[in-house]
Amino acid sequence: MSIQFVHETRPQRVRFGSGGAATALSAEFTLLGITRAMVITTASATAAADRITAGLPVVLRYRDVAMHVPVEVAERARSAAAAHDVDALVSIGGGSATGLAKAVALTTGLPVVAVPTTYAGSEATDVWGLTEGARKTTGTDPRVLPRAIVYDAELTTSLPVAMSVASGVNALAHCVDSMWAPRTDPIDQALAVEGMRALRTGLPMVVADPAGLTGREHTLYAAYLAAVAFASAGAGLHHKICHVLGGMFGLPHAPTHAVVLPHVLAFNGPAAPEAARRVADAVGGPLPALLDSLEAPKALRDFGFAESDIPSAVEAVLPAVPPGNPRPVTAEDVTALLHAAWQGR
Amino acid sequence: MSIQFVHETRPQRVRFGSGGAATALSAEFTLLGITRAMVITTASATAAADRITAGLPVVLRYRDVAMHVPVEVAERARSAAAAHDVDALVSIGGGSATGLAKAVALTTGLPVVAVPTTYAGSEATDVWGLTEGARKTTGTDPRVLPRAIVYDAELTTSLPVAMSVASGVNALAHCVDSMWAPRTDPIDQALAVEGMRALRTGLPMVVADPAGLTGREHTLYAAYLAAVAFASAGAGLHHKICHVLGGMFGLPHAPTHAVVLPHVLAFNGPAAPEAARRVADAVGGPLPALLDSLEAPKALRDFGFAESDIPSAVEAVLPAVPPGNPRPVTAEDVTALLHAAWQGR
Repeated sequence: MSIQFVHETRPQRVRFGSGGAATALSAEFTLLGITRAMVITTASATAAADRITAGLPVVLRYRDVAMHVPVEVAERARSAAAAHDVDALVSIGGGSATGLAKAVALTTGLPVVAVPTTYAGSEATDVWGLTEGARKTTGTDPRVLPRAIVYDAELTTSLPVAMSVASGVNALAHCVDSMWAPRTDPIDQALAVEGMRALRTGLPMVVADPAGLTGREHTLYAAYLAAVAFASAGAGLHHKICHVLGGMFGLPHAPTHAVVLPHVLAFNGPAAPEAARRVADAVGGPLPALLDSLEAPKALRDFGFAESDIPSAVEAVLPAVPPGNPRPVTAEDVTALLHAAWQGR
Repeated sequence: MSIQFVHETRPQRVRFGSGGAATALSAEFTLLGITRAMVITTASATAAADRITAGLPVVLRYRDVAMHVPVEVAERARSAAAAHDVDALVSIGGGSATGLAKAVALTTGLPVVAVPTTYAGSEATDVWGLTEGARKTTGTDPRVLPRAIVYDAELTTSLPVAMSVASGVNALAHCVDSMWAPRTDPIDQALAVEGMRALRTGLPMVVADPAGLTGREHTLYAAYLAAVAFASAGAGLHHKICHVLGGMFGLPHAPTHAVVLPHVLAFNGPAAPEAARRVADAVGGPLPALLDSLEAPKALRDFGFAESDIPSAVEAVLPAVPPGNPRPVTAEDVTALLHAAWQGR
């Protein structure tokens, strides 16, 4: 098979190690010459943030964050950054903290160092998002890509198992979908396969021993890889379907991904046998078996999606089918796929 | 097993596609805003260079290149770049052309676009080298990392099979050694595994059909990955041994790598079983079987290395053993390894 692609590798330093956040952060302050940091944290990460930034030159500790980065929250944070003449943004927390740091970086160009405490992966991408009322705007900009990421799995052990699994399955969906997404290339696929390998190792360990570090490390490492691969490859069929289900029917993000993913794999797999083989190799067998072992949800009807919703969902999915999907997608195909996902495995 | 690493991802755009060099180069001129290019080519690449740069704003076509970038060659090229007020360097050719462009970028900061015609991989690293008399100086600098690489396998079909295999086995050695090199990390290893996969596919195809593009594409893609992984991971035991053999006994680069590699794998493998398993998976079985199918050389004694040379080689290898090698390396170990490599498989 011929190899043809354009791949953009983006500059970023990753420091990964359990218990090493304070040391790693200090190293980044030195390397980047940070002397007036603004530390942005979510409420739950405040204590950890205070601990790992103790002794560092922080001029502003900022906690006015909110989910999906409302524009007024972003504006306040930008004003605060200017008022305190900060020279770097350090986000410590989940997607809301990272997202707010990105929003400030977008207009100021200030460098971001991200210390994630969840498996969301936003820290590994140049994607920003802002919401105004109910409307969410997203875009990409090199300025919002954190210069460095400090990964410390100890900061994620307090994340409940159910949320960890949901977040991990979301990362798994990013990896699987990256195998055939519109801008996919062999490098994205290699990173996605590595991410799936790590999730297969990590997620069952998190379930079996939520306080253990090794499972958390593998899941965190995978979340990074999934985000890098997905940001480069773009959204494939799976994410387009889940986006419709979330937007039109208010279905919850994580369970929707967990339910739909094996159906998309079953649909696309025969037309992308090499991708399907690599997914199976990486997750150690059939994907449903891994999901079952994680007690992932199995049916959309358990989340408020009705059989009668299928036709309108099909209508919305069809125009969203990504170019270059391994096989053509008809109304009948989507109907069958959604019916199977509604009914459950 | 615990995950701990620092990984620096360096910014670079890769455009990969057979027959696409002219189009890809034109896209890079537009994207980078190049208006006064200096095109640096090796003699053998002149015709190809003229063809793929036709119509582009080239103010200087430069052919004064030499192997290992002698400092006086670099100085002349820097003067020429200044005299012509060039705003970018485009290297089209093998390692000598890429190396000269890097030498000019090192002192000028001019952006480099590399169009490689061999499987050397230098275009994917921030490593520069200069020679003054017999002394070679090397270093790393972000300025010498090409901003973009244009890979077109059609430009490599004239590379003779024997040289292609030698170069490919060198890339394979970079991949294998990256699995346990001093700065190795899981990302380096994932890229190295992907490189080995591509070499296993590509090299036998190049041997079977030297004019065919698919084998060349896989080999070229692998050369890129091998260079990225190796530049990040550093030189492992294999490269330290080969460096001694080349430097002290003048053994030829490529055959030495091909002969020594399976012996290092056999030595390190039992102490790094996961790495050994991934190598075997990626190359489709035992490494010697792949090398045999490529008719790679098997014994150092066929290249002027004498049994009596072993003791002094051992003495030179021991202090060069990289930190973090999967197992300790004694004089007896190196003696046995070199004796086996001398005798041949």
